[in-house]
Amino acid sequence: MSSSEVYTASTTAPVNIAVIKYWGKRDPKLNLPTNSSLSVTLAQSDLRTHTTASCSPSYPPQDSLLLNGSEQDVSGPRTQACFRELRALRKQLEDANPELPKLSSLPLKIVSENNFPTAAGLASSAAGFAALVRAIANLYELPSSPTDLSRIARQGSGSACRSLFGGYVGWEQGSAADGSDSVAFQVAPASHWPQMRALILVVSAAKKGVSSTTGMQTTVATSSLFPARANETVPRRMKEMISAIENRDFEAFGKLTMMDSNSFHATCLDTYPPIFYLNDVSRAAIKVVEAINKKAGRIVAAYTFDAGPNAVVYYLEEREKEVAGLFKAVLGEKDGWQGERGERVQRDAEGLEHIREEAGVALELLKEGVSRVILTGVGEGPIKTDQHLI
Amino acid sequence: MSSSEVYTASTTAPVNIAVIKYWGKRDPKLNLPTNSSLSVTLAQSDLRTHTTASCSPSYPPQDSLLLNGSEQDVSGPRTQACFRELRALRKQLEDANPELPKLSSLPLKIVSENNFPTAAGLASSAAGFAALVRAIANLYELPSSPTDLSRIARQGSGSACRSLFGGYVGWEQGSAADGSDSVAFQVAPASHWPQMRALILVVSAAKKGVSSTTGMQTTVATSSLFPARANETVPRRMKEMISAIENRDFEAFGKLTMMDSNSFHATCLDTYPPIFYLNDVSRAAIKVVEAINKKAGRIVAAYTFDAGPNAVVYYLEEREKEVAGLFKAVLGEKDGWQGERGERVQRDAEGLEHIREEAGVALELLKEGVSRVILTGVGEGPIKTDQHLI
Repeated sequence: MSSSEVYTASTTAPVNIAVIKYWGKRDPKLNLPTNSSLSVTLAQSDLRTHTTASCSPSYPPQDSLLLNGSEQDVSGPRTQACFRELRALRKQLEDANPELPKLSSLPLKIVSENNFPTAAGLASSAAGFAALVRAIANLYELPSSPTDLSRIARQGSGSACRSLFGGYVGWEQGSAADGSDSVAFQVAPASHWPQMRALILVVSAAKKGVSSTTGMQTTVATSSLFPARANETVPRRMKEMISAIENRDFEAFGKLTMMDSNSFHATCLDTYPPIFYLNDVSRAAIKVVEAINKKAGRIVAAYTFDAGPNAVVYYLEEREKEVAGLFKAVLGEKDGWQGERGERVQRDAEGLEHIREEAGVALELLKEGVSRVILTGVGEGPIKTDQHLI
Repeated sequence: MSSSEVYTASTTAPVNIAVIKYWGKRDPKLNLPTNSSLSVTLAQSDLRTHTTASCSPSYPPQDSLLLNGSEQDVSGPRTQACFRELRALRKQLEDANPELPKLSSLPLKIVSENNFPTAAGLASSAAGFAALVRAIANLYELPSSPTDLSRIARQGSGSACRSLFGGYVGWEQGSAADGSDSVAFQVAPASHWPQMRALILVVSAAKKGVSSTTGMQTTVATSSLFPARANETVPRRMKEMISAIENRDFEAFGKLTMMDSNSFHATCLDTYPPIFYLNDVSRAAIKVVEAINKKAGRIVAAYTFDAGPNAVVYYLEEREKEVAGLFKAVLGEKDGWQGERGERVQRDAEGLEHIREEAGVALELLKEGVSRVILTGVGEGPIKTDQHLI
C-alpha cells in the first residue's frame, strides 16, 4: 500500500421521529433502554446527514470528525465505542484474508454535513451516528447487516439505531446484559405505507420559554409513575403500534402516537425536579390538532414531541389539505412553505374558519411562536453515495 | 311558631390548598375519591366564604342560595344531597324532642359571600360547601362533629370536606361503598405549626393560554399511569406527609408537596385527550422556586398547583424575605402587596440579582403573567359568627 493512498466511502442517513418514545436507560454505558421504542424514518430529501469516512496512512495519527465544518471531539466514550467495534469487525476480515489492506490500523478522518438548519432544534444525533457507523462500515466493506450495525450505532446514540432502517422501525429493548439483543428491526418498509407524511413545526427560539433541565436518568431515579410506563404501558403499545402499522390503520397509529407522546412528557413532569419540554406554543399545536380531528370526526392528524417544544404532526397524504393546509392557513408565510412540496399544499381557509372558535388563542400563539415548518414524510434508510465530502 | 318567625345562623369557612392532591373518584355520585389527600387550611382573614343559613315559614316554598349577590341553582344533586342529609339529622332531633321547632320542614334561604375576587380563579367550592353545611348545621343546632359534617360536605364538593377543619387536614379515602368512612380528619391544628405561610400568585386571565378540558374522570378512564399514582404513590406520600407535619420538617413537607403537584399534573397530561393546567407562567414560578431553593442550599419554598395556572408557594415565616420578598422583587407592584402584611414583606433585591442568571426568562414571564398576589398562611376551621347576611 502506498503511503499516500486514501480510502473513502460515503453514505447519507435519515432522521427518525419516534411514535413510541425512548426515555430511560437500564445501562447508561451501553445505551440499553428501559423500554422498546418505535419510529418513522423520515425522507432524506428533506432531512439527512451526509457522511464521508476515510482512512489513510498519510493522515495524522489521531482520528478526526468534522461536522458542518467544525471539528468535533471524538475522544468521548460513545464515539470511541463505535470506532472500536467497527475496527474490530474490520480486523476479523483482515485476519481471515491477508490480502486485504490493513485499514483497521489506519487513522480515520470523518466529514459530516446536515442538510437542515441546526437552529431547527431537531435531534441530529440519530442521523449523525447512523451515518457515521454506516459510512465506516462501507469504508471497511463489512458484511454486517443493518441489525448488526444498529447494535453499534446504539452505543453512539440510542435512537441512532433506528436510523439504520427505512420505513417503520422498532428498537427491541432486549434483556442481555451485554446489549447483544438490543437492536433495531424493520416493522415495515416505507413502501408498505408510503402515504405517511410529517409536518414539523419549529418553535422559534424566542418562544422557547423557561429552559428545561434535561436528563432521562433523573426520570428513572425519581419518577414514581415511570415504572408503570416502562413495564406496562409501552410493552402493550408496542404490540398495538406494530399492528396499526401492519394494518395501515391511521386512527390507531395516531391515537397511540399522541398518547405515547403525552405519557413520555408526563413522566418528565413527574421527575424531580420536573422536566418540561412542552411550552404554550406546543400546547397550541396540540389544541389545533384536536380541533382538526374533531372537525374530521376521526383522527386524521397526530402530534408528537421529542425532548423540545417542536411539534411533529403525522398525517396521510390524502388528508394533506385539512392537516398541513390548515396549519398553512393558521401560520401564514413561514420558511418551509416554499419549494415544490410546500407550494403544493393548499391553504385550508375554510377549515380555519371552522375551528377558529374551538382553537381560540391557540391560533395566535402558533402564528407567533412557530418560526418555520418542514414538510416531509416516511422515507428510506441509509443510502450509499459516491459524493464524497473529502 | 308564628308564621313570620325567621331562624338564622352564620359561619365563615376557609379555603384549603392541597399538598397531596385529590384527583379521581371511585364513586362520582357520592364523591368518593380514588386516593386520600391532605391540605393546609388557609387563614380566613385573607380568604373565606361567609354564609348565613336561615329558614322560615314565611319564606317562599323553594330553597334558595344567593352567592355574591347572584341567585344559584340549588336543584343539582350535590346541593340537594347536602340539604337532604342535614334535614334528616334535624328531623331526628325533632322526633326525639317534640318541643323543638320543626325547622326540617321549612324552606331554606342561604346567602353567601366570598371575601376574595372571583377573578382570582381560586377554587371557591371547597369553602362554599363547607360554609353551607356548617351554617345549616348551626341553624339546626346539630350536635354533629366536624368529621360527621365532612361526610356531608364531601357530597357537595369533594375537597370541601377538608375545609371543616383548621390547620393540617387529611381526607381518608375510605373503603365503604356508602362512603361512611370517607371523611376528613385533622392531622395537626394550626397552632402546631403556625409559621406556615402561603403566597398565591394569581395568573392573569390574558396569560391563561389554551383553555383546559376538564374532567378527573377522563383521567381515571384513560391515563395508564394513574393507577400507579392512586394505588402506590399517594398512599406512601400520605404517610410521609403526616410524618413531615408532625415533625415540622419543612424540607420533607416541601419536597412532597412539589412532587405530588407534579404527579397530579403528570396524570392530567397522560389523560386522553390531555388536560393542561400549567402554562408558561406556571413553569416560570416553578423555575423561580427552584432558584430560591438552590440559593438557600435547601428547600425553603414549595410550589403547588391546583386545576389552573395559579401557583401557591408555601414557606415558613422565618424565610419570608428570601421567598415572598424575592417574588416581591421579581414582580414589582401588583395588587396584594398593599396592606399591613404585604408591606411588611421586604423586597429581596440582592436575592434577585443572585438568581437572575439561573432564572433567566422566567423572571420576565412572571412579571408579565402574574396579575396579583395573595399573602396568607395556615389558619383555623369554620368560625361561627353573629354577623348575618340576612
